[in-house]
Amino acid sequence: MTIIYDKIAIIGVGLIGASIALAARRAGLAASVTGCEIDSAKAGEIEKLGLVDHVTTDAVAAVQDADLVVMAVPVGALGPLAAQIVPAMKPGAVLTDTGSTKRSVLRDVDPHISGDIHWIPSHPLAGTEHSGPAAGFAELFDGRYWLVLPREVPEDEVVRFESFVTGMGSVSERMDADYHDKVLALTSHLPHLIAYTIVGTAVDLESQLKNDVIRFSASGFRDFTRIAASDPVMWRDVFINNDEAVLEMLQRFSEDLSYLQRAIRWGEKDKLETLFSRTREIRRSIIDAGQS
Amino acid sequence: MTIIYDKIAIIGVGLIGASIALAARRAGLAASVTGCEIDSAKAGEIEKLGLVDHVTTDAVAAVQDADLVVMAVPVGALGPLAAQIVPAMKPGAVLTDTGSTKRSVLRDVDPHISGDIHWIPSHPLAGTEHSGPAAGFAELFDGRYWLVLPREVPEDEVVRFESFVTGMGSVSERMDADYHDKVLALTSHLPHLIAYTIVGTAVDLESQLKNDVIRFSASGFRDFTRIAASDPVMWRDVFINNDEAVLEMLQRFSEDLSYLQRAIRWGEKDKLETLFSRTREIRRSIIDAGQS
Repeated sequence: MTIIYDKIAIIGVGLIGASIALAARRAGLAASVTGCEIDSAKAGEIEKLGLVDHVTTDAVAAVQDADLVVMAVPVGALGPLAAQIVPAMKPGAVLTDTGSTKRSVLRDVDPHISGDIHWIPSHPLAGTEHSGPAAGFAELFDGRYWLVLPREVPEDEVVRFESFVTGMGSVSERMDADYHDKVLALTSHLPHLIAYTIVGTAVDLESQLKNDVIRFSASGFRDFTRIAASDPVMWRDVFINNDEAVLEMLQRFSEDLSYLQRAIRWGEKDKLETLFSRTREIRRSIIDAGQS
Repeated sequence: MTIIYDKIAIIGVGLIGASIALAARRAGLAASVTGCEIDSAKAGEIEKLGLVDHVTTDAVAAVQDADLVVMAVPVGALGPLAAQIVPAMKPGAVLTDTGSTKRSVLRDVDPHISGDIHWIPSHPLAGTEHSGPAAGFAELFDGRYWLVLPREVPEDEVVRFESFVTGMGSVSERMDADYHDKVLALTSHLPHLIAYTIVGTAVDLESQLKNDVIRFSASGFRDFTRIAASDPVMWRDVFINNDEAVLEMLQRFSEDLSYLQRAIRWGEKDKLETLFSRTREIRRSIIDAGQS
């Protein structure tokens, strides 16, 4: 139990923000944690759940004496938020975010950074389909990667931040924004887009068929509906803000899908079996990598 | 513990066949269960696992005195198998299958049925991404639907078969082949095809990116790799044999995906958020239906 940041402020106490509060307190990484939610009903819920030491609806007040400020809001809201809070932060404090896109975060937040705070963008590769403060739990980050983008910050501040995320149970890994957005486009953004699409296709079926699709929803579709239950605003912002990489991966995916579509239409069994056998190996690699 | 069929023969003791053996024995639904695998190495494995009372590599010998014969092989193998075993079955015995497509099964098996056996096609909506006899477990069908296609068979034989599948823990439900293939195309076949495709897209990435996609595989992609690890031969046969319904659903899916693709390209936030909110409701319906 070593305190790494005396005072932490978390702006946006949803699934991720609440889990950071719980994981940091579990490991005793901070002397006090303040949570900020502009919506007063949500702020009341956070208070009732006892997730943080202090709750406020005022972001500027929340960050004033914080040693670490975590922006855990949808990526589309980061620019305006940074503009509001950075001037109120104390010199030497660390600012981070948890956004699922990184090029857009640099584009939106960088212009508001002043020389005397340390801006370390980051992204924990963890989440569930649930959202809101009650969905948070202390174990969310255990064994999961937390990607860190160092930027122009003293190395000891980056190392300190990394010890904070590993203290919460994560595995820390540095990455640059371009590469991050490409990797995430395929591992996370495209799968979510596809899940949203196929569940949306079901929504539009005539009603008897739609009811039976729900009733007899087999493995496959059931997994997709879970993914497609994720927070709509967060994901809307992800696609808008990683459009370039998502559209590129989507193009590759569509080509590959057309290839399989053609193989089905022409009854080309060998092509199907060959691909289906190759994809099995990827699963094995992921299990070997301990990320299953 | 009521015996429903004195002797059961299961042809093909993979995930589904092995689970049927275990579920039937758990509930005491049969006096003896014979398992048949033409591959002698696999037959040895089944013997060693103790899944059934008797193991044989000879399908004709397996079915000769059976009261219920279950064909649990890939759908592409059902026609030749029926041609081989039906003439050896005793009068009054019941023949069923577990195939994931039903129109093709009727097309391939019906011509081989003689008047004195009862042919009741069926499909348990249960499975995992694992395959082979060691993957089977007695609880696989608990609470899952088992679709039954009555055909021209005496009602009491259908009711008896339904009591067998409910005895294994399933919920029995009658359905016709056309409707079955349509519902399954969307709930199961298309999701598998898409999962195979996106994991295949990852297979083809340049090697550094591919390695990092595996390493940082987040929720979403991880779920897809699990689905895409399913048995390649079984799934090859599913797509070839339900091509019409799969291609129709794929067409709808592609249109819907293009719509979202365009919304991303043009930054149409509202369209994305509206769809993502609607798909959440489907998940809620599935949880309410007890199939989550």
